[in-house]
Amino acid sequence: MSIRLVDTYVAPFVAENEYAAIQPMVTAAHKMLTDRSGLGNAFLGWVDLPRDYDKEEYARIKAAAAKIQKQCDVFIVIGIGGSYLGARAVVEFLKSPLYNNLKKDTPDIYFSGCNISASNMQELLAICEGRDVCINVISKSGTTTEPAVAFRVFRELLEKKYGKEGARERIFVTTDRSRGTLKGFADKVGYETFVVPDDVGGRFSVLSAVGLLPIAVSGVDTDALMAGANAAREAYADPDITKNDCYKYAALRNILLRRGKTTEILVGYEPFMQMLAEWWKQLFGESEGKDGKGLFPASVIFSTDLHSLGQYIQDGMRNLFETVISVKDTGATQLIPNDPENIDGLNFLSGCDLNYVNGMAQQGTLFAHVDGGVPNVVLELADRSAYSLGYMLYFFEKACAISGYLLGVNPFDQPGVEAYKKNMFALLGKPGYEEQKAALDARLAK
Amino acid sequence: MSIRLVDTYVAPFVAENEYAAIQPMVTAAHKMLTDRSGLGNAFLGWVDLPRDYDKEEYARIKAAAAKIQKQCDVFIVIGIGGSYLGARAVVEFLKSPLYNNLKKDTPDIYFSGCNISASNMQELLAICEGRDVCINVISKSGTTTEPAVAFRVFRELLEKKYGKEGARERIFVTTDRSRGTLKGFADKVGYETFVVPDDVGGRFSVLSAVGLLPIAVSGVDTDALMAGANAAREAYADPDITKNDCYKYAALRNILLRRGKTTEILVGYEPFMQMLAEWWKQLFGESEGKDGKGLFPASVIFSTDLHSLGQYIQDGMRNLFETVISVKDTGATQLIPNDPENIDGLNFLSGCDLNYVNGMAQQGTLFAHVDGGVPNVVLELADRSAYSLGYMLYFFEKACAISGYLLGVNPFDQPGVEAYKKNMFALLGKPGYEEQKAALDARLAK
Repeated sequence: MSIRLVDTYVAPFVAENEYAAIQPMVTAAHKMLTDRSGLGNAFLGWVDLPRDYDKEEYARIKAAAAKIQKQCDVFIVIGIGGSYLGARAVVEFLKSPLYNNLKKDTPDIYFSGCNISASNMQELLAICEGRDVCINVISKSGTTTEPAVAFRVFRELLEKKYGKEGARERIFVTTDRSRGTLKGFADKVGYETFVVPDDVGGRFSVLSAVGLLPIAVSGVDTDALMAGANAAREAYADPDITKNDCYKYAALRNILLRRGKTTEILVGYEPFMQMLAEWWKQLFGESEGKDGKGLFPASVIFSTDLHSLGQYIQDGMRNLFETVISVKDTGATQLIPNDPENIDGLNFLSGCDLNYVNGMAQQGTLFAHVDGGVPNVVLELADRSAYSLGYMLYFFEKACAISGYLLGVNPFDQPGVEAYKKNMFALLGKPGYEEQKAALDARLAK
Repeated sequence: MSIRLVDTYVAPFVAENEYAAIQPMVTAAHKMLTDRSGLGNAFLGWVDLPRDYDKEEYARIKAAAAKIQKQCDVFIVIGIGGSYLGARAVVEFLKSPLYNNLKKDTPDIYFSGCNISASNMQELLAICEGRDVCINVISKSGTTTEPAVAFRVFRELLEKKYGKEGARERIFVTTDRSRGTLKGFADKVGYETFVVPDDVGGRFSVLSAVGLLPIAVSGVDTDALMAGANAAREAYADPDITKNDCYKYAALRNILLRRGKTTEILVGYEPFMQMLAEWWKQLFGESEGKDGKGLFPASVIFSTDLHSLGQYIQDGMRNLFETVISVKDTGATQLIPNDPENIDGLNFLSGCDLNYVNGMAQQGTLFAHVDGGVPNVVLELADRSAYSLGYMLYFFEKACAISGYLLGVNPFDQPGVEAYKKNMFALLGKPGYEEQKAALDARLAK
């Protein structure tokens, strides 16, 4: 077991009979998922992906990653939402949030096409100057504005720099298996392509080619990542929440929400967990934030944010709970030097490992926040390995599905994401949006 | 005016008489602040700081920054909470979140002492290898665990690398004016020191030496930053919310909170705004999150997070509102290349500037979110200049003070931050915490 749910710090806030009361609902949700009888059942490809992934494509991903590592200094990954968060989360968690600042024998990796910022694009172009570049564009349709624009810019850059022939060897396309203009174009020009599976939504796609190619380029052991996910797939097959921590987490989220805890804060104690928290926020926020419902997902990195949002969590409005990811073995060691002058009064810590101090900060914070009225669910993660991370990614994916069914939503759609896009297209004058444009122009003129 | 509050997208959610009803309370809060008769009145040094700052010290800051720029490749800033968020927010906003990855004639700047992570420390040490280093330790007392430990590590590094004499020229200390062990030690050894003012809390300290030295090292025009802040100081002196957008923002926050909007999401449309949002979260979360009260501060960067939390905001629980910072002139230009193949169908945008598209994304999102039931307060910022940013920092500081008084809290204390520290010290066996340690050990043994 790479993950253990510790309920000591949530127990004071949940009555025993609440577990009993929600168990039949969890069992029903489990049945919906395994029968594929629930809402959104066309998007359950992630469930068995860690076992049933396309082995031929997986081998091509590894080969492409090796080729990219050899060919370039800078690897530009173009995608938005689920097409960038998973890969970035894994690279930062397993390598470093400072990955691009550290010496290494793998390329720098930058993410583009996930905003509409002119300054960000200008900076990425400056970073590419005088360096060898490969790109991976990730877009199911090829028509999403942000990645499409970035693909135009970087394709132009590569074709100018290497010619059309040379660029062809440096452009990797992750898109629909057969449909869509991007797939058609890639096949015509001869780019190597990988598949955004039809039955895996963006936020569940980290273990498909969407996430795996950039992850492999960073040098992460993708075999271990997939093995961990598959171990979690096997581990969380029993609907009984006394035996299934994944389902217990899903149950606790719903119990606490119904008690008025409307915000869930994901807590990490290491900077390498920040993008994982962003991935988690998309996973849960987009899966559950609909029909006027859903826990609001927020995140903090302690002890940093104990000196920021810490005050609020300790003593502000009591409508929140925390889910703490506690990494038992971080794999790094840093001893605290002795100071003969002892100007900070910390000589009682001389020679101690920072991990020990961080652990006590965590334990002290658990006590403090529980005393302050904040339930804390603790998820102990064995270590900072690809295996354990794969395990955790799957843990959250499955917990999210069960939790969404308990909440009474379709955890696999995202109808609300279209609203801004339609307005934007209309305002930009996209052909076909004439009527909506007239309506919005009239609102603007008021 | 560098900032303009647009109330078009909050108007559907607020009745006219609510403004009238809250005006006397705003006037009372204004009086508490100007009379210095409110709670926390020992910490109002920030109010006139943009005019009354120590000119002699300010000149020394500039000289030290020039010396640091000449002496080093890597500048390590050691501090936590308010001792790092302000500087980092300003450097990222005005320079870039990719500042350390871009070519430039100023040193790389890394922040340390703001976590207890062994891996982060190891990475920073690796980054320093073979490069010239200066450090700035920022700690009022010198005894806060995180920065104290980092100072031990980096002082050791510098003394090994340059000797005690050489290190003395590379260590800059921002601390109490006269008290504290760090001040005593710095004076004894001969480090140049700068002042953490007694009457300015950490989260209000960005325009003191705390923020200004690192900001100046990055090459930001601190004169313009201070001038902008001072212009805001002069602009927001009238208690009438029809004439004072700063106070109107404070009033709106409280009106919306009382209507059940318990979470405020700060929205930016540029990656360079992310750390500004973190600064803002500390400012408001720590000032207002107490006595069981306060808006929960969250943040997103669009369009990135429209593909993450966007679904929730559009269609989830309706207990939130957004405050959008809209930068009118971002100072960068990026035209969208034409694609003869038009594979993405976006040729209607060929030749358009990304800023234009970003603006339409913003306008489209405002309509969509308001239609979805989310009030949107829009703060238009003139441009991405040091002057305008200084103006905005002061805008938020003063709005925070007024808002905290409207809420009925002391906006200038942070009693809740101590709780985890006391527990941590007890668990770590710090001398003097024996009784608390026994109590916590007993809880752990249960």
